[in-house]
Amino acid sequence: MPRVVRVGAAQMGPLQKGEGRAVAVERMIDLLEQAHEEGCNLVVYPELALTTFFPRWNMDDESEIDAYFEADMPNADTAALFDRAKAHGIGIHLGYAEIAGTEEKRRHFNTAILVDGAGETVGRYRKIHLPGHGEYDPERHFQHLEKKYFEIGNLGFPVWRTMGGIFGMCICNDRRWPETYRVMGLQGVEMVLIGFNTPSTNSQRPEEGAEMRTFHNELSVQAGAYQNATWVVAVAKAGVEDGFELLGGSVIVHPSGQIVAKAESMGDELIVADCDLDETAFYKQTIFDFARHRRIEHYGLITSRTGAEPPE
Amino acid sequence: MPRVVRVGAAQMGPLQKGEGRAVAVERMIDLLEQAHEEGCNLVVYPELALTTFFPRWNMDDESEIDAYFEADMPNADTAALFDRAKAHGIGIHLGYAEIAGTEEKRRHFNTAILVDGAGETVGRYRKIHLPGHGEYDPERHFQHLEKKYFEIGNLGFPVWRTMGGIFGMCICNDRRWPETYRVMGLQGVEMVLIGFNTPSTNSQRPEEGAEMRTFHNELSVQAGAYQNATWVVAVAKAGVEDGFELLGGSVIVHPSGQIVAKAESMGDELIVADCDLDETAFYKQTIFDFARHRRIEHYGLITSRTGAEPPE
Repeated sequence: MPRVVRVGAAQMGPLQKGEGRAVAVERMIDLLEQAHEEGCNLVVYPELALTTFFPRWNMDDESEIDAYFEADMPNADTAALFDRAKAHGIGIHLGYAEIAGTEEKRRHFNTAILVDGAGETVGRYRKIHLPGHGEYDPERHFQHLEKKYFEIGNLGFPVWRTMGGIFGMCICNDRRWPETYRVMGLQGVEMVLIGFNTPSTNSQRPEEGAEMRTFHNELSVQAGAYQNATWVVAVAKAGVEDGFELLGGSVIVHPSGQIVAKAESMGDELIVADCDLDETAFYKQTIFDFARHRRIEHYGLITSRTGAEPPE
Repeated sequence: MPRVVRVGAAQMGPLQKGEGRAVAVERMIDLLEQAHEEGCNLVVYPELALTTFFPRWNMDDESEIDAYFEADMPNADTAALFDRAKAHGIGIHLGYAEIAGTEEKRRHFNTAILVDGAGETVGRYRKIHLPGHGEYDPERHFQHLEKKYFEIGNLGFPVWRTMGGIFGMCICNDRRWPETYRVMGLQGVEMVLIGFNTPSTNSQRPEEGAEMRTFHNELSVQAGAYQNATWVVAVAKAGVEDGFELLGGSVIVHPSGQIVAKAESMGDELIVADCDLDETAFYKQTIFDFARHRRIEHYGLITSRTGAEPPE
């Protein structure tokens, strides 16, 4: 049986602070309908797809913060998207800000879920590598307060057997860390789904702009794909939100590391590729046959030491 | 004090099976003299720089095999190179096949050493990720018998404080494994030195040629550089050895992941770059500040599991 997943990477343009979820969901449904016309069976939306990228705003009022979060998914705002995807038999990957836990101890995560073509939520991932900082930082050109608003993900990097293959997820800054892909690679992952919101300039080095940051995005996801012989689908929220620009450049990457599709705009844009999961096999069985080649006895520092410790 | 290392990456063209070490050493001295004229203080030679890439030949006779190995370094064949480097005050990185151990239990390694400008051998690395296979394989278009001729390196991935910075080494196929760079990154490495002999076609997929394999070389070393905020110097033995072609494309890579110098020929060629080790600091202190961002509690599989184990 062929194992081709026809993936639609649904890049989204900006969502302004003043825009509600209805704006986002209507545009997501438009992208879904395009994907349906193109024959996709999986649509990948970005990180925090339902609102503006709110970690750029410093907020202390709990209800103001929580207004960006979802306690249930699907919910009244998103049900139409879920219903339409199920009606088309299309799986979706969706990033959003999640409130979990109990009423007494609410927990906030930067989350992505994977929903299969029957509408079942088959996977959930909570972002582990939170970038930025935990308190207002006047030295930065703009704020990136993910460490303030989110807890570190508590679900690890699992993979799921669904839609004919083995799928994994990570979110935005996770993609820069080779450990992310490797933990999934050690579970045989065949396709990694990633949403991102990446400012087009470095908040701590403003001369580092979109060209370098696009290079870093591609370098990270291409290396993760190649070194683990997996497809990678990396999808941006792009464009100018209230004066702050986010990178575009959504890509679908082959297990060889080569980019097979790339977004050209800074707006809502669907890119499509037929991803044959069996094309992961060659490298998994040869140069990246982990069982034959990995030498875990020499990797100890990776899990025993967190920070860098230079020699005396 | 500025910490600029002026590096000469000394790519070498082919060495035929019938050529002795004198041919190699004479050419290495020519490259050293060029580096001296260019003001270099470190010259990086390739993997197994003194002989043809012999793992392509299937041999069983012990003395035939051992003829490619060195019991001492420097030795009579290489003393002139070491003397000249010391006279110029230039450090060298040299890859060679090493016989270690005792007379009763000789051990064979694929080794690289780092010699400082005063002629002291300050570092030794033995290749850990041996590619290829351990027995003659008639299915391959050509042989790659590193697992037959070498033991797995037994020295880990150490780093050394020398020449004003923190240096690490790895060899050829090691560069494709993110664990290699990360173990050194966790020791604060500022420059990783790599020699390689990489066939221009894949022995198990002959349609995969030089273009893809050059892409994989660059992807691996650029990702390793960026994700650990370190300089990487990757140096080829290139060109056609007895009908078998090796990749060129030696590169010097900035801690941003960008290539700052690249060889253009398939022969002996020196490429030079001024590498300011302080340029590793920005990413080490921000996006790749491991102490703030790494989450070793979620990396367990990397050191507890060798091979990939897909879910049921």
